[in-house]
Amino acid sequence: MRYSLLAGGKRVRPVLCLAACELVGGNESMAMPAACAVEMIHTMSLIHDDLPCMDNDDLRRGKPTNHIVYGESVAVLAGDALLAFAFEHIAVATPRNVHPSRIVRAIGELAKVIGGEGLVAGQVVDISSEGNSEVGLKELEFIHIHKTAKLLEGSVVLGAILGGGSDDEVERLRRYARDIGLLFQVVDDILDVTKSSQELGKTAGKDLVADKVTYPKLMGIEKSREFAEKLNEEAKEQLVGFDPVKAAPLIALANYIAYRQN
Amino acid sequence: MRYSLLAGGKRVRPVLCLAACELVGGNESMAMPAACAVEMIHTMSLIHDDLPCMDNDDLRRGKPTNHIVYGESVAVLAGDALLAFAFEHIAVATPRNVHPSRIVRAIGELAKVIGGEGLVAGQVVDISSEGNSEVGLKELEFIHIHKTAKLLEGSVVLGAILGGGSDDEVERLRRYARDIGLLFQVVDDILDVTKSSQELGKTAGKDLVADKVTYPKLMGIEKSREFAEKLNEEAKEQLVGFDPVKAAPLIALANYIAYRQN
Repeated sequence: MRYSLLAGGKRVRPVLCLAACELVGGNESMAMPAACAVEMIHTMSLIHDDLPCMDNDDLRRGKPTNHIVYGESVAVLAGDALLAFAFEHIAVATPRNVHPSRIVRAIGELAKVIGGEGLVAGQVVDISSEGNSEVGLKELEFIHIHKTAKLLEGSVVLGAILGGGSDDEVERLRRYARDIGLLFQVVDDILDVTKSSQELGKTAGKDLVADKVTYPKLMGIEKSREFAEKLNEEAKEQLVGFDPVKAAPLIALANYIAYRQN
Repeated sequence: MRYSLLAGGKRVRPVLCLAACELVGGNESMAMPAACAVEMIHTMSLIHDDLPCMDNDDLRRGKPTNHIVYGESVAVLAGDALLAFAFEHIAVATPRNVHPSRIVRAIGELAKVIGGEGLVAGQVVDISSEGNSEVGLKELEFIHIHKTAKLLEGSVVLGAILGGGSDDEVERLRRYARDIGLLFQVVDDILDVTKSSQELGKTAGKDLVADKVTYPKLMGIEKSREFAEKLNEEAKEQLVGFDPVKAAPLIALANYIAYRQN
């Protein structure tokens, strides 16, 4: 669990969670357990996705994947335990100044992000579409929305709920997060075909080898870059009306996702 | 998810959860989502335990195991989704007459049962002790407490918390559940060496083939039966003082576990 969780990811999801909490007037401590939890869920999904029976990947964040180091059975179990610990941490460690009804709501939102209408749904469609040349934009978007965008969305929504946001504020931040989520994947696809394994810290060109559909494959690299730019602008429009000082980290994060190099 | 969840287990955990809820004065509806959740967690642990990289079992509850029917990747993901859905269901479906602070507490208890100090811990030690003739009673009890007893305990504790039980009532029911949990495994071990696969609905004698430590192997069948009887009596002693009519199902369940034939 520690090996994969502390392997040094970008921590985009925790940062989003904390920034959303502060944007709606909460303080960092209210969303800190949830911020850790969303990173645990992200890590858990990477461990299971990398398994031999899934994507069979042996490099992740520049290090050997979990099952390469600890074996397949421990990798499955480490993922299971991280999944459970995410919920435990929110339930046990969220400070008492957050009303328990908000904690229950946050837990419901996070759970939905993972299961049969979230990460798992995306991975099932992803696996079943590998090597299938019939896969189109509709399936591609389904995969990306479920495997990537939903957890980013959940991270923002959890922060907004736990920080005491109104229903309207939660929904505006949800729309920001949906744009960011799609943006994140489009940029990932572009990087996969334009960067080396060393630059990325993971196997480059893997999407091509696995015959996966990607945005560059479907619309070309230039159109993919334009699409990324449009999503970035749309995301930032959702933040208009919030305190600009508190919105600054979320604007910076949209730009960071759009212009990152690995 | 449906295939394994609806394969017709004994539903011991949901029954324990509902009975504990009613014992402390709650009504069934307060603990129904939690009762479903503990069965989802139980099913999830069976699906993952049966995987080729774990116990590599192809028969469960008289039917082919999940990965035999749907493949390994879907079996891993079905378990993940059941794990997440258990938390979603408690958070979303527990009725509003249960205070949210009790829901948060129940979620924390359930999560602890699963992770690195619960089911997962038990499975890790179980796997690493297979084929190791040095394994003694201490390891055997660790495995049984974590793989079996903790979820039975959690089922009872969740019911008691959600039904509005006092801290004292919750702790007395926790002790009842601990005895039941150990009893359950001792009887399971006895059945494995005394019944056929057809009578059990799962592969009989598997513990012997896998060279696993069991109670009959360590203390003989007769001493194991005496130990089971002692645990049954101790469990029922914990219920003294509660309303005898409401305690009747829990007494019956202890007897059912002690005297079951499969």
